[in-house]
Amino acid sequence: MASTWDYGPLGVELKKNVKDSWWRTFVWSRDDVVGLDASILMHPDVWRASGHVSSFTDPLVECKSCHQRFREDHLDGPECPNCGGELTEARHFNMMFKTFVGPVEDQASEAYLRPETAQGIFVNFDNVLTATRSRLPFGIAQIGKVFRNEITTGGFIFRTREFEAMEIEYFVMPGEDEDHHDKWIKDCVEWYTGLGVGPDRLRVRAHDADELSHYSKATHDIEYLFPWGWGEIQGIANRTDYDLKAHTEASGQNLTYFDQASGQHIVPYVIEPAAGVDRAVMTFLVDAYTVEEVTSASGKSETRTLLKLHPEIAPVKVAICHSPGTSV
Amino acid sequence: MASTWDYGPLGVELKKNVKDSWWRTFVWSRDDVVGLDASILMHPDVWRASGHVSSFTDPLVECKSCHQRFREDHLDGPECPNCGGELTEARHFNMMFKTFVGPVEDQASEAYLRPETAQGIFVNFDNVLTATRSRLPFGIAQIGKVFRNEITTGGFIFRTREFEAMEIEYFVMPGEDEDHHDKWIKDCVEWYTGLGVGPDRLRVRAHDADELSHYSKATHDIEYLFPWGWGEIQGIANRTDYDLKAHTEASGQNLTYFDQASGQHIVPYVIEPAAGVDRAVMTFLVDAYTVEEVTSASGKSETRTLLKLHPEIAPVKVAICHSPGTSV
Repeated sequence: MASTWDYGPLGVELKKNVKDSWWRTFVWSRDDVVGLDASILMHPDVWRASGHVSSFTDPLVECKSCHQRFREDHLDGPECPNCGGELTEARHFNMMFKTFVGPVEDQASEAYLRPETAQGIFVNFDNVLTATRSRLPFGIAQIGKVFRNEITTGGFIFRTREFEAMEIEYFVMPGEDEDHHDKWIKDCVEWYTGLGVGPDRLRVRAHDADELSHYSKATHDIEYLFPWGWGEIQGIANRTDYDLKAHTEASGQNLTYFDQASGQHIVPYVIEPAAGVDRAVMTFLVDAYTVEEVTSASGKSETRTLLKLHPEIAPVKVAICHSPGTSV
Repeated sequence: MASTWDYGPLGVELKKNVKDSWWRTFVWSRDDVVGLDASILMHPDVWRASGHVSSFTDPLVECKSCHQRFREDHLDGPECPNCGGELTEARHFNMMFKTFVGPVEDQASEAYLRPETAQGIFVNFDNVLTATRSRLPFGIAQIGKVFRNEITTGGFIFRTREFEAMEIEYFVMPGEDEDHHDKWIKDCVEWYTGLGVGPDRLRVRAHDADELSHYSKATHDIEYLFPWGWGEIQGIANRTDYDLKAHTEASGQNLTYFDQASGQHIVPYVIEPAAGVDRAVMTFLVDAYTVEEVTSASGKSETRTLLKLHPEIAPVKVAICHSPGTSV
């Protein structure tokens, strides 16, 4: 099926190592982050409250001649890239996958496949806060599949409709959000460089005002210099108190934190480091791809191609090889 | 949402430990099994070829009075368990979740959420065989989310519409299938007992002929004695050459194995040990739940409730606790 990928025997081990490294770094090695595993099928009310039903859209245009469809903000010019025809006005295309749950199709049994793991964290905020008795600042981390009905996909595993997310929602005191935002950008970059990615092929880029998601005060992307140019591999957003307030308003359940110092209930701000497992895998693979000049046993100069993967994520740690025809 | 569950900070670690233990036991510790990670969204052609579009159904009956719907094979008698009314004839209700992929709803862009990970393995059989140069017998293992639109759900995380599967397709020479089937039943039982589950609360039950899935020659369930009775926690099926032949016929791609000894291309038989992560978690939790009589510091007899989880899967390995009011 177009734009879905299967990982083979080595790929699944590489991917598992990447996820385990992330979990070790951001959950186990810190005493201010705990894990969560929420479901993929979620009630439409969650996505109405979060703003995704109304705002999680891409601008879709269609060619009036050949009827191909494109994402307007990915086009270079005003005409159809396929046949040069005239394009329609852009309309908002919602990127969430819908399905129907239960044996009764005529009842209100719609459900969405989550397009991010974040909302599963926000609706569990109060449960986790009560169960762990955490104090601000603290975070909740989650790794899991997410689904986005992208208009255009491509670049191998770079933009797919089904992918795996690694996200943290980090709850902080309002006013301290910008400092924590800066700290998280630094920590996230260090995870990639700590696993061997060259710092000269990484950059941090702040979103322009017109790029920001509906919930964001500021977002910084970590970008990697792929052979075809810079591409986003992780976003770190300041989601403010948008989500907790939206869910409080929609559900009537009070999602606040009691601050003992001031004796007041406050709504925390949220810093969200959100990475993609598949883009991380692709970054590590591309960065490890090396072509070297070597001298062969017979003294000839040859080139060899190899993957210089960091040992922590390499699917095969040690190999004992023998040449055909050699006794071992 | 009904029949979906979220795992909290301790639950996610317990579940991760269970999955890691299974992967260590059945992939890393064996040289005849490799891993795979195929996608959840799969093309309808795969499910037509596998027989799931026509046969992956449950018998749905509706009460003519109160219009509640039930799974016929879960009812005790011929009348409605809710109001005693008359029930309709059973009709076949397909349990696969459907969604639409791509921005064009009027094109043939249906997709199903996989109800098992097995088919992702069968369609990758030739890729894995070629890439790993495996010889029979060998297996391909996969852990991942699957979705079944069950008519009736319940029993906490026992029967849910979204759950995580741990499956192996183990390819063997025809004729050797029954021996391998027996061996796998034994190996699977030992995984549970090796993690502390009492052997007296486990039993193996062979499916009756009318219980068998459309692809199966023989299936054995491993059942656990839950407080409410025996419940299936794993199936080990002999799928014969049904799936590889079905995909060969539908796709035209020859899914055979070249046997060097006989110089012939053969279609392997398949033994499938298929477990549920969530049912395994539930088994370990229920089995570890212990109520003990103890004598308190002041000499009184008290009862205390604790979880005696095996150290390999316990989310917290060591805890240092202090009583409130005590200096540490």
